[in-house]
Amino acid sequence: MNESAMIALFTDFGAAGPYVGQMKAAIYRELPQATLIDLMADAPVHNPRAAAYLLAALPREFPAGTVFLCVVDPGVGDPGRRPAAVAIDGRWFVGPDNGLFNVLAMRGTDVQWWDITWRPPRLSDSFHGRDLFAPVAARIARGEAPPGTACALQDRLLPGWPRDLAEIVYIDHFGNAITGIRASELSDERCLQLQDRRVVRGRTFSAVPEGQAFWYENANGLAEIAVNRGRADEVLGAEIGAKVHIV
Amino acid sequence: MNESAMIALFTDFGAAGPYVGQMKAAIYRELPQATLIDLMADAPVHNPRAAAYLLAALPREFPAGTVFLCVVDPGVGDPGRRPAAVAIDGRWFVGPDNGLFNVLAMRGTDVQWWDITWRPPRLSDSFHGRDLFAPVAARIARGEAPPGTACALQDRLLPGWPRDLAEIVYIDHFGNAITGIRASELSDERCLQLQDRRVVRGRTFSAVPEGQAFWYENANGLAEIAVNRGRADEVLGAEIGAKVHIV
Amino acid sequence: MNESAMIALFTDFGAAGPYVGQMKAAIYRELPQATLIDLMADAPVHNPRAAAYLLAALPREFPAGTVFLCVVDPGVGDPGRRPAAVAIDGRWFVGPDNGLFNVLAMRGTDVQWWDITWRPPRLSDSFHGRDLFAPVAARIARGEAPPGTACALQDRLLPGWPRDLAEIVYIDHFGNAITGIRASELSDERCLQLQDRRVVRGRTFSAVPEGQAFWYENANGLAEIAVNRGRADEVLGAEIGAKVHIV
Repeated sequence: MNESAMIALFTDFGAAGPYVGQMKAAIYRELPQATLIDLMADAPVHNPRAAAYLLAALPREFPAGTVFLCVVDPGVGDPGRRPAAVAIDGRWFVGPDNGLFNVLAMRGTDVQWWDITWRPPRLSDSFHGRDLFAPVAARIARGEAPPGTACALQDRLLPGWPRDLAEIVYIDHFGNAITGIRASELSDERCLQLQDRRVVRGRTFSAVPEGQAFWYENANGLAEIAVNRGRADEVLGAEIGAKVHIV
Repeated sequence: MNESAMIALFTDFGAAGPYVGQMKAAIYRELPQATLIDLMADAPVHNPRAAAYLLAALPREFPAGTVFLCVVDPGVGDPGRRPAAVAIDGRWFVGPDNGLFNVLAMRGTDVQWWDITWRPPRLSDSFHGRDLFAPVAARIARGEAPPGTACALQDRLLPGWPRDLAEIVYIDHFGNAITGIRASELSDERCLQLQDRRVVRGRTFSAVPEGQAFWYENANGLAEIAVNRGRADEVLGAEIGAKVHIV
Repeated sequence: MNESAMIALFTDFGAAGPYVGQMKAAIYRELPQATLIDLMADAPVHNPRAAAYLLAALPREFPAGTVFLCVVDPGVGDPGRRPAAVAIDGRWFVGPDNGLFNVLAMRGTDVQWWDITWRPPRLSDSFHGRDLFAPVAARIARGEAPPGTACALQDRLLPGWPRDLAEIVYIDHFGNAITGIRASELSDERCLQLQDRRVVRGRTFSAVPEGQAFWYENANGLAEIAVNRGRADEVLGAEIGAKVHIV
């Protein structure tokens, strides 16, 4: 058992409202000394596919053993949607099996997948984040095995997903438009085109004139479209789900 | 004294801005080992009545001994508004006596009410959450008695409040419209009507066609109006304070 | 080394998105027992000058030894922008040298300025908050000296800044418009004028009729324009950067 077990929360619940706080209370009940990090509460709403490409860019800054409690779960309450715990290269991911972990699992080297078969005494129809995933994450963080059944990765991987997603997957507080494409997959000469606007690669914000749009490798390795001291979402009309063309 | 005393914060201060952080600093000054949970920072603004029905649905997931620091306090600075500490069925509530704890106290079994008479050396006119309620919550969390005077509950309960509030009390990040009505008070055949739109009960999101409005018992026991993979606030024009008719 | 070293986060990253959480993970890697406080994640975007006057009002509620990790950094990636660690009257401030600490340093009694010369093994072009400032803040919080070079304050203070800033520097969740003017610099008879609207001083919200605009000394000592139970930003058309006239 890890004294300062770290659990990172990645959800589409919103920073506001009681949901994240209730999930934390459920974690602390199982693991009072947990270290909780609000990683994102505004993952793409009801969109596990876009969320999956975004999530895949985030774990590398976190220590081995970190448990990511991830809930983007429009199918909650559907009996066909299975709860999952997935160990990927030394970190843990707990949440629904709706594709949210598909990109991480596709790209991972050492991947083990468990179906969570444990159910809590009281399970609401609509808030498995609090009632089921939070206590499972806490148990894994304190060193227990996932309460379920190991299964073959190829039975759980959703087929046909692209290696990178040529779409906007997130708009940040500055109006920057993050794509699901790893910048390492793009040579420097590539432009990104959003509708009829084409932008070239820049290195940093300060290297580009104010008001000009460009793309660059963001600090999490994704190609991101930005406007120096401006808002790319407004200048380019970017929104989550918009197609990005590599030209 | 509890080593990991839990204090849950419920305010209308907004997730942004310095107010919640300053309140936390004031708590840590009294109780460095406190476990703080951001329960809600977007309670209905300046509306302790709607907030009271929402708040009443939230404590049951929290352990005994939890202190809820609750500030929805439009009358701050008014000498007629008294600070309160209320013990309700093993949990504590600290905040203004403006009705915010009225629903919890009405419904509680074992309720003790204190007027807080202690005042800090420096008390601002506008931020009692930081200057007064936070240190009181910290002291109670570390096991001290409320710094004030016990008084009779019937002298502090505001009279004439309904058992449940047939209004929208919160719109969440998904656009779901939460009412102040406990679902356990409604039989399955009841419809909820918002202006001229009537919605029937559904069990879960996934049991309802996409785009259809319905009501259901949310994970906190309240009747909530939702649209499967849509936004009830937009589809139905729901907003905080709107009347809900039970038909 | 302080067991419960406190680090307060002041950024323009937004409460949403992964940036604050990633910064916290970077701190915990260096200092697992840190106590982190989200002070503000919505400081004036790309505006270190307005942010500096706001920031200067906030530290006094925090204990001696607190490290403020402050990132409003539009020039990130510009080699002319130096990282700084500044000790001011017993508290620490870590962030860019773009003016963000200018007001605190101008007003401080005991001020020591360090250029941070340490660089991490991996430094992104766009996220020095995570890669550089967070580990430096953690090291200072655990009692180490700033990893850099002490320099003369007069070489780092930006000249020509006013003592107080007669502008709106922040709009809060209630729509209150906070100025960069310390209320202690204004006699009670002074009015504040925003465009063509002039407001007189009030003492508290509850002392003013509902719907009326006034200014008052807020709980952090700044002159703030508010409307009792209304929104000053809507009533007066206030926004960040708007000039305030003292009349």
